Amino acid sequence: EATAKRKDAHLDLCATGDVEPLGNSTLLEDVRLVHCAMPELSVDEVDLSTEFLGKTLRYPLLITGMTGGTERAGVVNRDLALLAERHGLAFGVGSQRAMAENPQAAESFQVRRVAPTVPLLGNIGLYQAVRMGVDGVRRLADAIGADGMALHLNAGQELTQPEGDRDFRGGYQIVEQLVRAFGARLLVKETGCGIGPDVARRLVELGVRNLDVSGLGGTSWVRVEQLRAEGVQAQVGAEFSNWGIPTAAAIASVRRAVGSGTRLVASGGLRTGLDAAKVIALGADVAGMALPLFRAQQAGGVEGAEKALAVILASLRQAFVLTGSASCADLQRKPRIIGGQLKDWLATL
Amino acid sequence: EATAKRKDAHLDLCATGDVEPLGNSTLLEDVRLVHCAMPELSVDEVDLSTEFLGKTLRYPLLITGMTGGTERAGVVNRDLALLAERHGLAFGVGSQRAMAENPQAAESFQVRRVAPTVPLLGNIGLYQAVRMGVDGVRRLADAIGADGMALHLNAGQELTQPEGDRDFRGGYQIVEQLVRAFGARLLVKETGCGIGPDVARRLVELGVRNLDVSGLGGTSWVRVEQLRAEGVQAQVGAEFSNWGIPTAAAIASVRRAVGSGTRLVASGGLRTGLDAAKVIALGADVAGMALPLFRAQQAGGVEGAEKALAVILASLRQAFVLTGSASCADLQRKPRIIGGQLKDWLATL
Amino acid sequence: EATAKRKDAHLDLCATGDVEPLGNSTLLEDVRLVHCAMPELSVDEVDLSTEFLGKTLRYPLLITGMTGGTERAGVVNRDLALLAERHGLAFGVGSQRAMAENPQAAESFQVRRVAPTVPLLGNIGLYQAVRMGVDGVRRLADAIGADGMALHLNAGQELTQPEGDRDFRGGYQIVEQLVRAFGARLLVKETGCGIGPDVARRLVELGVRNLDVSGLGGTSWVRVEQLRAEGVQAQVGAEFSNWGIPTAAAIASVRRAVGSGTRLVASGGLRTGLDAAKVIALGADVAGMALPLFRAQQAGGVEGAEKALAVILASLRQAFVLTGSASCADLQRKPRIIGGQLKDWLATL
Amino acid sequence: EATAKRKDAHLDLCATGDVEPLGNSTLLEDVRLVHCAMPELSVDEVDLSTEFLGKTLRYPLLITGMTGGTERAGVVNRDLALLAERHGLAFGVGSQRAMAENPQAAESFQVRRVAPTVPLLGNIGLYQAVRMGVDGVRRLADAIGADGMALHLNAGQELTQPEGDRDFRGGYQIVEQLVRAFGARLLVKETGCGIGPDVARRLVELGVRNLDVSGLGGTSWVRVEQLRAEGVQAQVGAEFSNWGIPTAAAIASVRRAVGSGTRLVASGGLRTGLDAAKVIALGADVAGMALPLFRAQQAGGVEGAEKALAVILASLRQAFVLTGSASCADLQRKPRIIGGQLKDWLATL
Ligand SMILES: Cc1cc2nc3c(=O)[nH]c(=O)nc-3n(C[C@H](O)[C@H](O)[C@H](O)COP(=O)(O)O)c2cc1C
Ligand SMILES: Cc1cc2nc3c(=O)[nH]c(=O)nc-3n(C[C@H](O)[C@H](O)[C@H](O)COP(=O)(O)O)c2cc1C
Ligand SMILES: Cc1cc2nc3c(=O)[nH]c(=O)nc-3n(C[C@H](O)[C@H](O)[C@H](O)COP(=O)(O)O)c2cc1C
Ligand SMILES: Cc1cc2nc3c(=O)[nH]c(=O)nc-3n(C[C@H](O)[C@H](O)[C@H](O)COP(=O)(O)O)c2cc1C
Repeated sequence: EATAKRKDAHLDLCATGDVEPLGNSTLLEDVRLVHCAMPELSVDEVDLSTEFLGKTLRYPLLITGMTGGTERAGVVNRDLALLAERHGLAFGVGSQRAMAENPQAAESFQVRRVAPTVPLLGNIGLYQAVRMGVDGVRRLADAIGADGMALHLNAGQELTQPEGDRDFRGGYQIVEQLVRAFGARLLVKETGCGIGPDVARRLVELGVRNLDVSGLGGTSWVRVEQLRAEGVQAQVGAEFSNWGIPTAAAIASVRRAVGSGTRLVASGGLRTGLDAAKVIALGADVAGMALPLFRAQQAGGVEGAEKALAVILASLRQAFVLTGSASCADLQRKPRIIGGQLKDWLATL
Repeated sequence: EATAKRKDAHLDLCATGDVEPLGNSTLLEDVRLVHCAMPELSVDEVDLSTEFLGKTLRYPLLITGMTGGTERAGVVNRDLALLAERHGLAFGVGSQRAMAENPQAAESFQVRRVAPTVPLLGNIGLYQAVRMGVDGVRRLADAIGADGMALHLNAGQELTQPEGDRDFRGGYQIVEQLVRAFGARLLVKETGCGIGPDVARRLVELGVRNLDVSGLGGTSWVRVEQLRAEGVQAQVGAEFSNWGIPTAAAIASVRRAVGSGTRLVASGGLRTGLDAAKVIALGADVAGMALPLFRAQQAGGVEGAEKALAVILASLRQAFVLTGSASCADLQRKPRIIGGQLKDWLATL
Repeated sequence: EATAKRKDAHLDLCATGDVEPLGNSTLLEDVRLVHCAMPELSVDEVDLSTEFLGKTLRYPLLITGMTGGTERAGVVNRDLALLAERHGLAFGVGSQRAMAENPQAAESFQVRRVAPTVPLLGNIGLYQAVRMGVDGVRRLADAIGADGMALHLNAGQELTQPEGDRDFRGGYQIVEQLVRAFGARLLVKETGCGIGPDVARRLVELGVRNLDVSGLGGTSWVRVEQLRAEGVQAQVGAEFSNWGIPTAAAIASVRRAVGSGTRLVASGGLRTGLDAAKVIALGADVAGMALPLFRAQQAGGVEGAEKALAVILASLRQAFVLTGSASCADLQRKPRIIGGQLKDWLATL
Repeated sequence: EATAKRKDAHLDLCATGDVEPLGNSTLLEDVRLVHCAMPELSVDEVDLSTEFLGKTLRYPLLITGMTGGTERAGVVNRDLALLAERHGLAFGVGSQRAMAENPQAAESFQVRRVAPTVPLLGNIGLYQAVRMGVDGVRRLADAIGADGMALHLNAGQELTQPEGDRDFRGGYQIVEQLVRAFGARLLVKETGCGIGPDVARRLVELGVRNLDVSGLGGTSWVRVEQLRAEGVQAQVGAEFSNWGIPTAAAIASVRRAVGSGTRLVASGGLRTGLDAAKVIALGADVAGMALPLFRAQQAGGVEGAEKALAVILASLRQAFVLTGSASCADLQRKPRIIGGQLKDWLATL
């Protein structure tokens, strides 16, 4: 199966390849949180919980959609979903296209046995959704017992992919239909190039209630495809490997654009709990991560991923304590220092 | 013939010499276009066409004037003109001074056989034009069936050239005469040091309708001459090898200064389709390139140049798609992020 | 005794370990004082004196609290207190927790024999003070004949310390009680992560009259503890080794926040007399240093510390002369150039 | 003779030592002049002349005071004065203190035989002038047939010099007396640490009509003395080797402060004709240089210096042509781009 094969090539590249091009940046290094010398908090008292997809997270974290469709992918999904369940995070499976094409692939997306209560996101590409229609998408969500459906945008990747889409029309139309079908259970996400304020505003006007800006600075899918491409596409891909809206610029500008009624996930290049705290300070409700947990799982199984996650959770909590923030809303009221190129982005976006 | 010999020395230096001094920059790296996650475009549907010299380009690209006068130069001209014809670009020959001095040199400037429909630009230096008078210039244009005439400004080069001009008076006067003779068919261009808003405004007031700002950041003709010069001139040339208005600063400030009635080409250091998209975003109607296509042709003939051009065209198109721009006018309405030293230039110019 | 052992491990790390993480900065390099070509001063005439804890310093310098509790610590205290006495500086002992726990440790904090007239600061941690109560703290101060009591804040360190505090509640309450007990003799200090304007304002509202902002850029106690920690805590500690408000940002913003009624010490990363002059120019009444004098003492005894101090004092005086400042108040009226990241901090704080 | 010996040690250090500390900068690299593609000038027609000390310079250049008092110094003075005469520059001798102390030293300051018409500046330190009184200073000027007298300020150097002054009082008083004696023939100069707007304003209010800001970025006399000093002074000197107002900041801010009535020289770190053009653009009437001509003379005698000077003059002229400036006043009306740290300096000074 072509889709499955491609997915395995992707996993291999992501596990060990240079998929985070040097020089790409989230611009989170241009954000400094401000130390509070008198936190007046107990570490355990800090309330990191947040609402997401109608459930309550213990930590404002989402393991964003990555994989599915092969046995190896199934292990990744179950290992990471298990951790999400254990720590009260949200979890997303990867693109369910393979599953739509081949029912046997469905098994690898099933995580409810290990993660009965996590807010669970299905996943499908925008142009796949166009092709399968609203009912097809609904079936994918139902088949895995998902709380919501992530619709991913990846035009940059498609253009770099030999077999990729070239026609990006009709996107808002299908979004509109999916909004009608899924309501507050729909999430629209990018995959590393970022959603900016213009697109965000238009999506919110259509009724989208959850966005994952997934900006530049982490896994670059243009880069992943470039490593697989040849000829003109490989060279153009190389030029566009740093294309996108840096995550810090995306989340801050989108929050400004959409107001407080929309649930915002910020992902793309977050690597530490401190990074997660920064995107929350900039306006995210939930911080998303993919690559670091995937790599930890690949290197050390569920135990390896647990260790990596423990550091992230402790660091996130510490950032709250040391800014004197008792909750996410509290952190968002604290001062933050914005410097460097991020100032330039925010002056315009 | 002195002119022909000098031209061949120039070609050799440009083909393999260090003619783009390290540290010189177009400042296009201080410009970031903004990703559009929902382009609502089909790749093929993007309309890159633009009007130039009364004809329609399929791509807003000009291969700027480089050569002529020797057999080798004739091959370069024909190879690149052929590509311009094939892809719907504009093309310019190099300085026709050699041709004015020696009728036998004319052959190397003839590209109409391979490029019957391209918007074709003749080329002569400002001070050559002073010497040969309006009729002489008209004869040059007619002799190659040109659609327009490029008048090049290169005071920096002249000063570094042992045999160069030292008297730059009377320039606006000859421009005025040429405007009367050529009207909208006249284009005034720099050659890598840039036209700024003051000069642009004055030229437009005299009736010039096409400008190529040709700014700093690519081929430096001060540098080329410096490599040939000796003594004081070589040392002064070294100091001035980074002299000029960076291309990004030139195009943005000139567009602001002259309004929308003037056709603007931006050249000087553009190396990719993404660079071309950036100058269009900053206000150019047409993006110009010389060195990269010359070098590709020298290294691989017409085939080599075709390959280099294919990457440039695909990258340019991709930049349009990924900013959600259906046309040049559309791209110019999109946000763009301006940072670094470019901010300083644009605060003053 | 656990406390004593930990203190000795701390001393060893501070004496030779990498406790000032590369990349951490006070941002004092973003401050330039302005040369005065006509100082109209005699070097000896410059009046560097300032009031502190009811006494008069000859130099606006405080050797901030570092140690006590072991024999080695006692030598450090006496050597440095001797220098303070000799040159008219203020001196602080390290945390007296060891002394509260073990009366025999008291001896190492006794410096009055060698420093009968220096303004002397006792020292205790905020949460230790909570535990021992106001009377306990008063006893500590009285036992060493202190002129004032330093209450240190170190939440960053505690969180990185395996045996550290996790509950930071009730801090302002104990401060309020200590204010009642100590009045203008109480000083609240950080330990390298900085006090910002919000905390400073609240402390001043409670009646605190002396603050040592002790900001980021020098000894990092998160780092010291990280070098001792293991597992999750070591990794989180590594992430937070550059956490804090840079000293230059802290002192300038706190001075702005609290007005002139509060005595401000600026410490954290000051390494030269010029650094000291800069923090005074930014609003400090007194400049504080710990590590450089500790290290000089460890390497060369009292003589070594004397030599290091002589350079600091001469450099401080020279900065006054070359800015044409006859006194601290005078220096604070002179222009100072603020650049780089410090501008970003001061735009927000 | 102590003064003579010290002067020879200085010459040796300046000839080959590291007297321009790395990292010190004039900030002239933060200034960009703007290319004029249509200069409408003939190279020879550019009028670089300017009035200075009642005479007319062909180039707005001053070889600033360096030496005298030994035979070697005499050669330097005569070689460089000869060049000044030949090219129509101004010339200054070094400190005439040696001459005041020892009549035999006078010979080395005599340059009128080789430079009968140059605007010639005598030279004495401010505090030397205090000691010898107005009549003594007048005798020094008369003895060499000077057109004016340079009074040098060098507090930074004095403090780093073992035998240096420590009392800088009474400076304005002696300036006032010298103004009465010399009128428009008096010039007050720094020696590499810069005169800022406050000092400049006060000097102008006392009647001083000529200032040489001599800022940071070139020869550092703090550094020269530091290389000769020991102990505390050497260490403090090292800290202050980058002390001062960068030349670009000094000249721009002083011109703003004093208006057009005062003749301003800008020196300190100018190394090329382009540097000279930049300081003129920023408001200088005359550009001054010391070290580069001294070094060229030491390395290659009068011929070596002539070669170095030829490059400087050609580069200066080229900068005028390529900015389209027919005169100094013209250049000062052209736009100039200000970036980097220079913006920070000019925001405050
Ligand atoms: C191995 C891997 C597979 C992914 N597959 C998908 C996918 O199928 N669907 C999707 O929406 N995003 C996918 N992503 C993108 C992530 O959800 C996320 O948006 C992006 O990687 C940025 O986050 P990161 O820098 O933390 O990896 C994948 C990412 C990785 C690393
Ligand atoms: C080999 C070569 C020859 C050139 N000859 C001419 C010329 O004859 N006339 C002219 O107007 N410009 C000439 N140019 C300048 C180009 O048209 C263009 O303005 C400049 O090179 C900047 O573009 P680039 O950085 O893409 O090379 C020449 C450039 C090159 C590389
Ligand atoms: C060896 C050492 C021990 C310290 N112990 C204490 C302490 O017991 N109490 C305290 O308030 N600060 C303590 N500090 C912190 C210092 O007082 C000061 O706030 C901090 O080190 C920043 O200054 P520096 O960069 O000059 O070292 C200690 C610092 C050092 C280097
Ligand atoms: C060798 C040497 C000797 C100098 N001696 C004097 C002096 O006697 N009097 C004076 O006013 N400046 C003296 N200066 C300073 C210069 O006049 C000038 O202000 C300073 O060197 C900065 O210019 P530069 O960077 O081009 O050298 C001397 C400089 C040099 C290099």
